[in-house]
This record gives sequence, structure tokens and C-alpha cells, in this order.
Amino acid sequence: MIDINQVIESLDWSKEPKGLYEPIGYTLASGGKRIRPTLALIAAELFGGKENEVLPAALALEVFHNFTLLHDDVMDRAQVRRGRPTVHVKWDDNTAILSGDQMLIEAYRLLSGVPADKLPQVLRWFNDMATGICEGQQYDVDFEHSAQVQLADYMKMIELKTSVLLAYALKIGGYIAGANAAQQEALYQYGLHIGLAFQIQDDILDVYGDPKTFGKAIGGDICCNKKTFLLLTALSKADAASKAELNRWLAISDRDQEKIAAVTALYDRLGVRAEAESVMEEHTAFALKQLETLPQNEATERLRQLAEKLVNRKS
Amino acid sequence: MIDINQVIESLDWSKEPKGLYEPIGYTLASGGKRIRPTLALIAAELFGGKENEVLPAALALEVFHNFTLLHDDVMDRAQVRRGRPTVHVKWDDNTAILSGDQMLIEAYRLLSGVPADKLPQVLRWFNDMATGICEGQQYDVDFEHSAQVQLADYMKMIELKTSVLLAYALKIGGYIAGANAAQQEALYQYGLHIGLAFQIQDDILDVYGDPKTFGKAIGGDICCNKKTFLLLTALSKADAASKAELNRWLAISDRDQEKIAAVTALYDRLGVRAEAESVMEEHTAFALKQLETLPQNEATERLRQLAEKLVNRKS
Repeated sequence: MIDINQVIESLDWSKEPKGLYEPIGYTLASGGKRIRPTLALIAAELFGGKENEVLPAALALEVFHNFTLLHDDVMDRAQVRRGRPTVHVKWDDNTAILSGDQMLIEAYRLLSGVPADKLPQVLRWFNDMATGICEGQQYDVDFEHSAQVQLADYMKMIELKTSVLLAYALKIGGYIAGANAAQQEALYQYGLHIGLAFQIQDDILDVYGDPKTFGKAIGGDICCNKKTFLLLTALSKADAASKAELNRWLAISDRDQEKIAAVTALYDRLGVRAEAESVMEEHTAFALKQLETLPQNEATERLRQLAEKLVNRKS
Repeated sequence: MIDINQVIESLDWSKEPKGLYEPIGYTLASGGKRIRPTLALIAAELFGGKENEVLPAALALEVFHNFTLLHDDVMDRAQVRRGRPTVHVKWDDNTAILSGDQMLIEAYRLLSGVPADKLPQVLRWFNDMATGICEGQQYDVDFEHSAQVQLADYMKMIELKTSVLLAYALKIGGYIAGANAAQQEALYQYGLHIGLAFQIQDDILDVYGDPKTFGKAIGGDICCNKKTFLLLTALSKADAASKAELNRWLAISDRDQEKIAAVTALYDRLGVRAEAESVMEEHTAFALKQLETLPQNEATERLRQLAEKLVNRKS
């Protein structure tokens, strides 16, 4: 398969005005797993599609994803991304806003290279995907200030914010390579559910990960009262006494280590970890089941391995 | 011709999450001249095009234009737009950034309604237009901090920031209605040059407008040393003594009324107003000349009147 990193590196951002294009090159050069274009390419490979036909959409998805990171970093006042200063720190807010806008336009420019007969449909799906991401981001912001968030709301939010992009990457890749409607739907569902499993695993690792392999401090979500799968499950499962104890800890913003230990103990008592692992495994199993309806070849095998790696990852 | 305001009002923004969509509805409801969709519709009418076929692109252009205003207002820290608080004032910066992003995506969603056989080309032009606007905005920012700006740089900047959107509105409208390549180019050039004439007229009115009809205070550009057509022309025409006098005034940031009077007197002495009017009339004449190569009907007459109204406008 084509080396997606190499293709991304070959994009030319040395254009004028530099203040507009340099931050785009900087953002795209900062790495990342390139999971979205890779999924689009694997989905196309599954149906023997031509790489050059799916590449424009694959690149558009990656540029779009990086655009969301750039603007999210402004909104979250994040200082560091992938070990380097964020764009609004290295340049300034206005540069980050305008370069981000141009990056979104560049995603659509790459998308315009999709074969003409497939473009109308791909453009509509791409717009639906992009809308999902923005809606997910808005819900995420809304949830921070809401005391009413339910687990179902959280699942909808992570579906929009994370899963929909993976799902459409696979669906678009397959569609361009000739997948039929049922196969497109199987790819979409596979992507949606590995995305959900991935996000729940993220929440589990933040509390139960091995500090040696996790890569960041354990318990960060607990410290900042982040409404994760674990916390929302705990709140829904807890009896009055446990709920009161949990709410007492939520009101405490110093004593981090004590808080992490106490909330983790509560999670254990309430069976929250087992619940989260079980739901994650359900989503993974559902995703794997989708693959049975697709052609069986090396690409299917890669998707199978990807799903299994996800459930067993340590970081 | 269809009532474009009515169509824009009929777009539904009462969707969830409200924090994402309400600012879009608010921005689009604030009025404006709707010049861009109107140009697209007139260009289509010129070739007997079907309104419903050109409407998606016409709406996309208007939504895109309003997106640029929304993000520009954040970057410029503008407090008021069309007599109402700007989005980042009424809500906050993050809402303005994210709603603006969604508004840009909505423009592409509207664009996806362009007839499928025309969509690939229209999408490429739309991307070129959008890129031009962002580049123009970046140059405008760069120019504020540069002492090297020449008149040619300024003309390039206003072409990107203002004219390209008018030019593509006409070209896209004509193309969808069946204009051939030469006719598309004539429409593009007409739009480009009325845009340039419009911007130069803007610069002239800011100094020489009638305070009774202009709508805002005269001399605003002079007060803030804005690099307008007039100032850049003055700097290029001035002899050493006049240049020294002009630069002395540029260094003064209080004494507004005195500064306006002195710089205006310098402009008069250097023949800057006559030069600006002459260049504006050249662009208008060039624009009008393009119309000769197009079908002659009511639509052509409207474009002719539009160009002439532009040169003679008072506000």
C-alpha cells in the first residue's frame, strides 16, 4: 500500500502569503497515526480499488482531521500538540483561525479530485461527516456546563466527535472502489463501532492504564471531573450513599491523589470497569461481525487485526 | 426573479445543538445587500438558466460570504455588524469560531446541490474563490505591519479580498446556465473589475464623500493610516518635501480633524483624487466592455446599470 506519510509530506505549503500556509504545513508535519486516510485506503483495497482514485478523499479526510485539531486547540487554549507548541502559541490566535479556515478549504480542494461520477455523493457524505464533528464538539462544550448529561448523551457525543469520521473514511473509500450499498453500510458500522470502542477504552486507560505504558498521568479525567463513560456509568449505577460520596469528591479540586484513589475505589465497588469493558467488547464484536459480510482478503484481515489491537492496547 | 432574501430566510437553523446553529441564523438574518447571490442569478438569467439549478450555488456564495464576516469580526475584534452585536460579542469567541466553521461547511452543503454534471467544475472554482478570500485577508493583515506596500500589492489584495467572489459568482451562475468559455471569462472579468472599481470608490468616499449621505464619519481611513488607494498613490506621486509632510502626519495619532484636513489638502495638491477617479472609471469601462460580448437582454441591462450605479454612488 502507498506510504500515506510520504504523500502528505509531498504536499507543498511553501506558497504566499506565508502567514496563511506555513501553519498548515506545520500542523500536517507534526505526525499522528494517519488512521483516517489509512482506513479509506484499506476499504478501497478490500474491493480492489485504484489507489490514485481514493487518494484525494483519503488526503481530504486527514487534512480535515488536522484542521479540527488546529481550531480545537485555539478553543481549548491547548499549549502543546504532539510535543510541539500549538499554532496559536507559535503564531497567534488570528493566524490559527485564518489558517484553519484555509485548511478546511484545502480539504475540499483535495476532495474535488475524487472521480467526477463519485464526487456528488462523496461531497454530501463529507459534509455530513464534517457537520457531525462540529456538532460533537459543540455537545462536548455544552456537557462541561451541564449537570444533566446522561450516558446516552455521552455516547451520541463521542459518536459524532470521533466515530463518524472513521465510519465515513471507510464508507467513502469503499464507495469509490465500487462497494455496493450493503457493503458501504457494513464498513460504516464497522468504523462507527471501533470508534466507540476506542473512546471507551480511552476512558478506561485514563483510570486503569499502566503508568509505564500509558504515556500520560493516570487519573487526569478524575481530577478534572470529566464526564467520561466511567463517571456517567458510576452516577447511573450508584445508590444514594455512593452517589453522595461521589458528588463530595467531585466538589473537591485539590487533593488530587486522594481523589483519584477514592473515585477509583468507588468505580471498583460499583463494577464500573467491568461494565465499561463489557460495552467496549460489545462494540468491538459488533464491528468484527460487520466484516463477515465483506470480501475476505488481506484488507479484511487488517481491519480484523485493527479492531483486536484496539481492545488490547495499553496506550 | 426569485426573492433571494425570502429564500435565505426560509433556511432552517433551529437545529440542535443550538450553540452551533443559532449564531448561523443570527448572522444570515442580519441582512446585507445579497449582491453575490443576485449576481449569480442575473448571470444565469442572461443565458435563460433555470433558477432552481443556480440557486444552490447562489446560496452557497452568500453563506460563504457571511462566514467570512463572522470570522473576520473575531479577528478584528469588531463589536458591531449591520447595527447588531457581532457573534463573538453576543456569544463568545469559541462559539464564533465553531459556528463559523460550521457555516463554511454549510456553504459546501448548499453547493452540493449544484447539478451533478456541473458540480466538479463549480466545486473547483468555489475552492479557488474561497482560497482567494483567505489569501486576501492574510495580505490585508500583513500590510498593516509592512512599510513596503506598493499600489500594485494593494490592487492584488483587494482583487483577492473583494473582487474574486463577485467574479466567481457571475462565472458560476453563467456556467450553470450554459455560458460558453468566452462568456464565462467575460462575466468573470466584469465581476473582477466592478469589484476593483467598487473598492476604489470606497476609498474615495471615505475622504471625499458627503457626510450627509455617506453614512459614517469622513476621514476614518486617514485617521488610522489605512493603506488605501489614495494613500499609496500619494506616497508614490509625492516629491521629497510632500512625502516628508505626509510621513509627519502619519506619525501623528491625535489631532484627528487637523490630520484629516492636512492629508486631504496634500491629496488635492498631488492630484490623488483625480487619479483614483480615473482608475476607477477605467475599471468600470473595462467591465462594461465585457458586457458587449454577452447576449443582450434584460439581464445584461441590469449588469450595465449596476456598474453605472457603482461609479455614481454616494454611500
